This record gives sequence, C-alpha cells and structure tokens, in this order.
Amino acid sequence: MSENKTPWIQTIRLDEPSLKDNTADAERLVQALKTRLNAPNIHIDLDFLKNLPSILREAQFSLRCVLFKEKHQWVLTDIQNANATQICAGLAVDLGTTRVVLRLVDLASGRSLAELAFDNPQEKVGPDILARIHFAEKEDGLKHLNDLIIRDLNRHIIELCAPQNLRPENIYALAVAGNTTMTHLLLGLNPRWIIREPYIPVVNNPSVVKAEALGLRVNPRAQLLIFPNIGSYFGGDLIAGILFSRIYQSQQTCILVDVGTNAEVVLGNENWLIACAGAAGPALEGGVTRMGTTAGPGVIDQIAVDSDTHTFEIHTIDDLPPTGICGSGVIDLAAQLFLSGMIDVRGKLLPAVCGTKIKKIDGLSHLVVVPAENSATGADLTISQADLDSLIRSKAAMYTIIETITESVNMKPRELERFYVAGTFGSFINPESAIAIGMLPDLPRDRYQPLGNSSLGGATLALQSDAYHDEIHQIRERITYLELNVNQDFMNRFSAAKFLPHTNLSLFPTVKL
Amino acid sequence: MSENKTPWIQTIRLDEPSLKDNTADAERLVQALKTRLNAPNIHIDLDFLKNLPSILREAQFSLRCVLFKEKHQWVLTDIQNANATQICAGLAVDLGTTRVVLRLVDLASGRSLAELAFDNPQEKVGPDILARIHFAEKEDGLKHLNDLIIRDLNRHIIELCAPQNLRPENIYALAVAGNTTMTHLLLGLNPRWIIREPYIPVVNNPSVVKAEALGLRVNPRAQLLIFPNIGSYFGGDLIAGILFSRIYQSQQTCILVDVGTNAEVVLGNENWLIACAGAAGPALEGGVTRMGTTAGPGVIDQIAVDSDTHTFEIHTIDDLPPTGICGSGVIDLAAQLFLSGMIDVRGKLLPAVCGTKIKKIDGLSHLVVVPAENSATGADLTISQADLDSLIRSKAAMYTIIETITESVNMKPRELERFYVAGTFGSFINPESAIAIGMLPDLPRDRYQPLGNSSLGGATLALQSDAYHDEIHQIRERITYLELNVNQDFMNRFSAAKFLPHTNLSLFPTVKL
Repeated sequence: MSENKTPWIQTIRLDEPSLKDNTADAERLVQALKTRLNAPNIHIDLDFLKNLPSILREAQFSLRCVLFKEKHQWVLTDIQNANATQICAGLAVDLGTTRVVLRLVDLASGRSLAELAFDNPQEKVGPDILARIHFAEKEDGLKHLNDLIIRDLNRHIIELCAPQNLRPENIYALAVAGNTTMTHLLLGLNPRWIIREPYIPVVNNPSVVKAEALGLRVNPRAQLLIFPNIGSYFGGDLIAGILFSRIYQSQQTCILVDVGTNAEVVLGNENWLIACAGAAGPALEGGVTRMGTTAGPGVIDQIAVDSDTHTFEIHTIDDLPPTGICGSGVIDLAAQLFLSGMIDVRGKLLPAVCGTKIKKIDGLSHLVVVPAENSATGADLTISQADLDSLIRSKAAMYTIIETITESVNMKPRELERFYVAGTFGSFINPESAIAIGMLPDLPRDRYQPLGNSSLGGATLALQSDAYHDEIHQIRERITYLELNVNQDFMNRFSAAKFLPHTNLSLFPTVKL
Repeated sequence: MSENKTPWIQTIRLDEPSLKDNTADAERLVQALKTRLNAPNIHIDLDFLKNLPSILREAQFSLRCVLFKEKHQWVLTDIQNANATQICAGLAVDLGTTRVVLRLVDLASGRSLAELAFDNPQEKVGPDILARIHFAEKEDGLKHLNDLIIRDLNRHIIELCAPQNLRPENIYALAVAGNTTMTHLLLGLNPRWIIREPYIPVVNNPSVVKAEALGLRVNPRAQLLIFPNIGSYFGGDLIAGILFSRIYQSQQTCILVDVGTNAEVVLGNENWLIACAGAAGPALEGGVTRMGTTAGPGVIDQIAVDSDTHTFEIHTIDDLPPTGICGSGVIDLAAQLFLSGMIDVRGKLLPAVCGTKIKKIDGLSHLVVVPAENSATGADLTISQADLDSLIRSKAAMYTIIETITESVNMKPRELERFYVAGTFGSFINPESAIAIGMLPDLPRDRYQPLGNSSLGGATLALQSDAYHDEIHQIRERITYLELNVNQDFMNRFSAAKFLPHTNLSLFPTVKL
C-alpha cells in the first residue's frame, strides 16, 4: 500500500456535471486539481483530452490523478479509477560519466523501491568528457552517443522494474542529475562549445521535458526533470548534491566537495553559496580520482603501516586475496608511508627506510605493497614513485581549490563548520589519512560527513516534493560561480601544498610525525 | 517591407559569449527576449535547441526571432539571421459549420495579405452540428470528420500562400475561431457529450497547441491559438466576435447578434457581459438563416414592392437574371409584402390583394416573385406560405431572445445604444426591413452596425497583439451565460412576437402601415 506523502498522486472526487454546472470535462478536472494543489495552472496534453470524457465517466468521476511539475505549471500525466492499486513509479537517475545509477521510487510515498547501476556505455567511445565531445563532432557521432545511453537506460529500466512487478509504463516521472556534457548527450544536444573557449553549453536549464521525446520507453506521458547546470564545468549533478546536502539552508557555513572526475566544490550557508569546479588547467591534470583502481571485491581499501617494522596490514573488500589498490587505499597508503617515515615531505620514497620493499622496474622506483606470493594476480602489487608524484599533485590541487574558495570569502579552511564529502569515492576516504597528507584541511574529524551518492540523493528528492523543484532553481540562482584563475597566486598556493602535509605545518597541527 | 507593429517578430543583437559572460546559448537568447518583451518566460522546444548553437553562430548573434504566446509563456517558433527578408505569416481561420474562411496576415505588421473561403467539407457527412456529432460516434467517424477538415485546410493553405510567394512553412502562428463542435472536430476530440444533457464539452479552453500536432502542414513549430468556448452552444467564434466588436470596452451598453446557424446574442459594456445562444428547443427550429438560398451571382438580395400596383422591383447580385432569393432578400420581401398589405399581421398571403400572383402548388399557396419568363431558371421564383410561416417563427424567436436577454438586465430593447449585427448574412440584412417585420427592435437606424465576419476579425486580432490573448480570457471570464429557459414566460413573449411587427405596436412606433 502506498502512503501519500508526495503531491504527485491525488485521489479526487469531481462533482458530476449537471445543467447547473456544465463546465467542460477538462476544466472540471483542472479546477479541482488547482484547488487541491493550490496550483496556478494544470496542463493536460491534447492527446490526453481525446480519452478524457470516457475515462471520467467510466470512473464515475472518482479519480486517481498522477501529476508532475514543470517550471511554470503542473502537468497531468495519468488519470485512473480512484480504486486503482498499481504503484505509480518514479525514476531517479545519477547520470555519471563512468557510472549510471538508477533508483526506482514509489511516486506516492517517495519511498525507494530498488536500485541498479551500470557502466555508462559511452565509455566504449571515450573514457572522459573530452573524448566524447570530440566523438560527437564526427558524422552521426552525437546520435551514436545519444543512442548508446538511451538504449542502455531503456534496457536497465526494464531490468529494474521486473522484480517489483512494475512495467516501464508504470514510470510517470523521472529526475536526472548529470554533468553538463552527460546532460547534453542525453538530450541529443551538440556539446561542441562546452570544451571551447569561452565554454558555452547549449542550455543551462532544460527543465522538464517529455521522456518519450528523448526515446525513453516509460509511460508515454511521463515527465522528465533535468537538473540545471551553472556552466560547462558545473553540472546538474552538483546542484543535486547541494540539494541533497541542504547546505543552502544551513546556518553554519559548510563546504561540499564532490571528488568526482573534476573536484567540484561548493561553499556556503543559508545566506550565500559560492562554487568552483577544479578543471583548472594543466597543473591539475590527472585528478584526484585517477588514483588506484575502481573499488571491487579483492581491492585493497584500507592499509596500515607498522611504524617500527614497516610491514603492511591490508584490508580488502570482501576479505578476498588482494587484486589492486583503490583510490581510498592509495590515500591511506600515502598517509601511512609518510607517518612511518618511508616517504619524505615531498612524497619521495626513502630507500634507507623502505629497504628491500623498493624494486626498480624500467628504471623507476616501485614500492611493493603486496608481494607476488600473497596477491591474487600472481604479480607484485606496487605503487610507483610516479604514482606518488601524481598523488602529491592531486592532493595539492584539491587543497589549493579548497583554500582558494574559502579565502575568497575571507575564511580559513580550518574555520569550516561542516565538511561534506560527496561521491562514491569520497565515501570511502578516511579523513584521518586525507588530512595526514594535507589533501583535506585539519578540522575536528566529526566535522567531516560523507554524503554517499548525493547526485542520486538529490534526484530522488526531486521525485518527493514540488518544493524541491523550486529549491533547485533557487540554488541555481543563488550560486556565485568562482572562476578558478590559475594565476601566480594560485600557483604559489599550489606549490606550498605540494608538501606533506603542507609547507606551513601550522595549518595541520594534529598531524604528528 | 514589413513594418514591425506586432510583438511576434523581434530583431535582436545578443552579446557574444565571453569568459566573463559564459551563460548558455538558450538562456542568452531567452534573457534578451524576456527583457525585450517584458515576458515572464520564453519556451524553446527541445528539438529547436539541437540547432540553436549553429544558428546563433552562423548569424553572428544578430537574429530575427519569431514568437507567439501560450497561456502562461511566450514560445520561440523560429530564429533567423537578422537580415532575413522573407515574410513570416500568420493565418486567421473562421471555422464555420458551413463555410471556412482563411485570412493570411503578415505577422510583423499584422496587415492582411489575402483571403480565401471554402465550404466546410464535413457538410458531405452532415449539414449541421447534430448530424456530424452522430456521425462522429460511428467507428472511425470522428477520425473521418477530422481528416476532412485538416485535409482541406492543408489544401487551401497552399492555395492561399502561392500567389503571395509564401510557402505553408512560412506560417508561424494560427488563430482559429469556431463553434464548440467545430473546434472539437478540428482537435479530434469526442463531441458526443455536447448534444446530450447536461451538454458538456471535452474542453472549454484548449488554448495554444502545436499546429503540427493537429496534422496541419505549416511551419513545424507553428503555434495555433484556439478561441475558448463558454459551453456546448456558445463557442469561440462568438468570443472572437466580442473581441472584434470591442463591446467589452464600451461605456455604452451594446448588443451583438450573430445571425449564424444559432442566433447567439451578447449584451454588455465595459462593466458586464451577458450572453445566450438561441438553441432553445423545438419552438425555434429552422433558425433565421435557413431562409432563402446562399448569396451569389444572380441571387435577389433586395426587393421593393410598389404599394399601389403591387409590382416587384428586384435587385440581383451582379445584376444578372434572377436565380433565387437569399436570406436578406426574403426579409426585404416579407417587409414589403406586409407594408403593401399583401400579407396580414400573421404573415398570411391575402388573395384579395395578391390576386393572380398567388399560385397553388401541391395545394399550398405560393406567391410568384419573378415569373418564369423573367427568371434565369426558366421556372417561377416563388415564396410559399410555409416559407412565410417559417420566417414568422424565426423572426419571433430572434426578437424574443433579444427581448429576454435585454429584460434580464432590466433594460428594454429600445434602450440599446448600439446594435452590432455579425455574420456574413447579418451584413446583408437591411435593418429597415428587419425592423418592419419585428425581427430587430425599433431603434434609430444609425445604432445598427454590421460587423461583417466578426469571427474572422477576432481571429485576426489574436495575430496582431498578445494583449488580445489576455482580453480573450478576460472576456471569457467576464461573461455570464444566460440559460434560455423555454418556459411559459418565454412562450408568451414568443407568441406576442409572432405578429407583424408585434402584438404590441407601441414597441415599433416607426413602422407605419
């Protein structure tokens, strides 16, 4: 049984028409719904009007109405007999560059029913935004990218619905949060100008469209809300994250860091919001998330190093023999190597301490974390000096961005009252380790809070109340976008952050060697 | 050269995007148009966004935009290079039950370019609303009726455009005024409940739809405004007529009578509007317009009778040999027969006066108006006693409706300050004759004003300014619909009006026998 907590499902009994009350079918229904929802207008598609008279009369004017909200009006997406019991579903979509997550919700209660994730099929064409945009410029390239994602969405929607005894036609509303490029590719919009100065998307706010118009096989009248973007490098996924974090309603000043493909950062409170995205030029190439392998069974996600013996204690996902090290494991490892004196303040492996754990491969130093005999792959699991150098650049970039945005409002990073770490990767980061290497500021640890998939969380909220739709636009209107100038000041900060934990140790008082 | 008098065509130069002004293409355009039009929102179709980046850049951000207005937002229907010179056209449609009139207008200046009329092809299926609604209930009946009108509209649109060097794709906005049933058949909506108590249309206010969705082959993004109806028997054609007459802005109290298939009447001024439609039961069957033949070359449109000799002086359209008598000619004839004493106060032919002009055909008295030797048909042109009886009922119904609505606001018909006669038929009526038979009230003759095709006139206004769109809805909201109760009081008035000019001669002081 669905409990009615959202405004989307309205059970309503209309006055039957009479000579004294002979308004038309459409306006009779619209007026009742306007009153119920306190809505300025309810839109009914022309095609829907064709069946309206028979639907009303067969249901004897006792109806269950399914609605959604466009920017300026409510839209009627279905009318059923008031005693219908079939669940009306909504679908929240986190449209990631590498991974897509679907969450099916009961549109009446807002409750989650099921989840499913799959790799973005556009990865076959190109691993990142840049490669896909270049591909989109080839003949039929855009169409191909669009077809890939639409086809896989359709396929996985069926797969997600079946165990719930739902059909795709039972989905009446969708909310999609993705970065600007993924949104463009979903809508079939030309992303060409996103990567070319001055970096112009086709649209910032596509708002609500018909899912059918995109080729999605759900209910033909289903409406699809797309989270708006702020610019080419600040997408709807982050707006969804802000919505989910509620920092825009917080009295305390909070920071939200989405450690995704770009390091996107939002700082603010109930009075102001300032944001920047870390696509800040060649200095930051590589990105924080390029480290390590993707999390999965057998992957090392936690590492401790004994300061005296310099032996590694590892933890793997599902406690299986180790296959590799994931991003959060690499951060742990670097922190432990530093704290146990195996690397220096520049992140350089110290042969005198590491001893036989260092091997030269193709002339480059590697530290053996798991020797071949203990690994699942039969080969040494190592981290190279190049990996460590890359990590140092990435963590320095992250800290510099946090410092830059914080100081832009005359605050110090250590004054942040709440620190939200968003993204699946972010959820696994151990703040203690991230602070030890100076990637995140040295705050009391309880100020850190992982948000999980905040993009999916925000998309789910958009399926729970129309109030969130308004808030999405308020958030978008309120955000000041800080263009990251990679100028001398930025480079100076960046250079100072390339030490472990930082050139200025007073910024990290709790990091004890 | 089109002069820009309407808001629909806007030439605009956008600021080019830069790093300091990197809003998306869509919002750049929308913001500029919102400012220009002082509009709360501008809608751009998703499909249109696909070409937007290249259009903007090819035009170097100097654009000619074509717009129209929906109920709650403006809609962008085309973007062209600012130096484009091709006329953007609009199409006003008077969608009559028997006749359809198209008027092509220049959407920039609002100026009329050309007109064309054709018989409503649904006449093949049924001559009137009732027959067509019954036909619509057969299998595929509605689809057939819809196909007929859409096909003929498409055909005649091409025909109308060609001499203007326009193609149907140059039509970006349409405004259609028709009665409630014609509107339903155009939209493909089931008219079944229109003729069944309590007479419920599917929709009162379909507002603005995409012309393409109706199968109209004009510009694929063209918007089509449909005049709203007030009920099953008070359609958008009359709302268009009210808009055209401006009685809703008049300080004087005016009446608007549309002598169409139904006698529809609106009374009012800037403060109030009251309306009724004459589909008032069996007493009124036949209607005022069933009299005579359709106007055309050779048809008698004016008749005078010499009081002494009782000879007829006739005038035919184009001065050709007479082929028949049109409606306005029948009214003239009846007035002259009455004033010359050839019929009595009940409309009965007086053999003593008419003499040999009366012939018995199938036992029924006919008055020969044009003997066979002078007619174009080679047969006598006659009017029968049955025709005269029918005329008496029709004119009595007309007067009774006018009297009823006028007295409902405690006025007398003779107090009406302006009397608008709408409809093509109405334009040809000689008020002097209509007053002589007591069909219209005995007002100073200069208070009568023919409006011509007010339905087409109103539709044209909707293509000239968005202000009229608001006024259409204000008119609709303001009208009080007076349900004509054919009760004893109505029947008493009707009986009194069945004399020439009326039982109460003091109502017609200027009618002198």
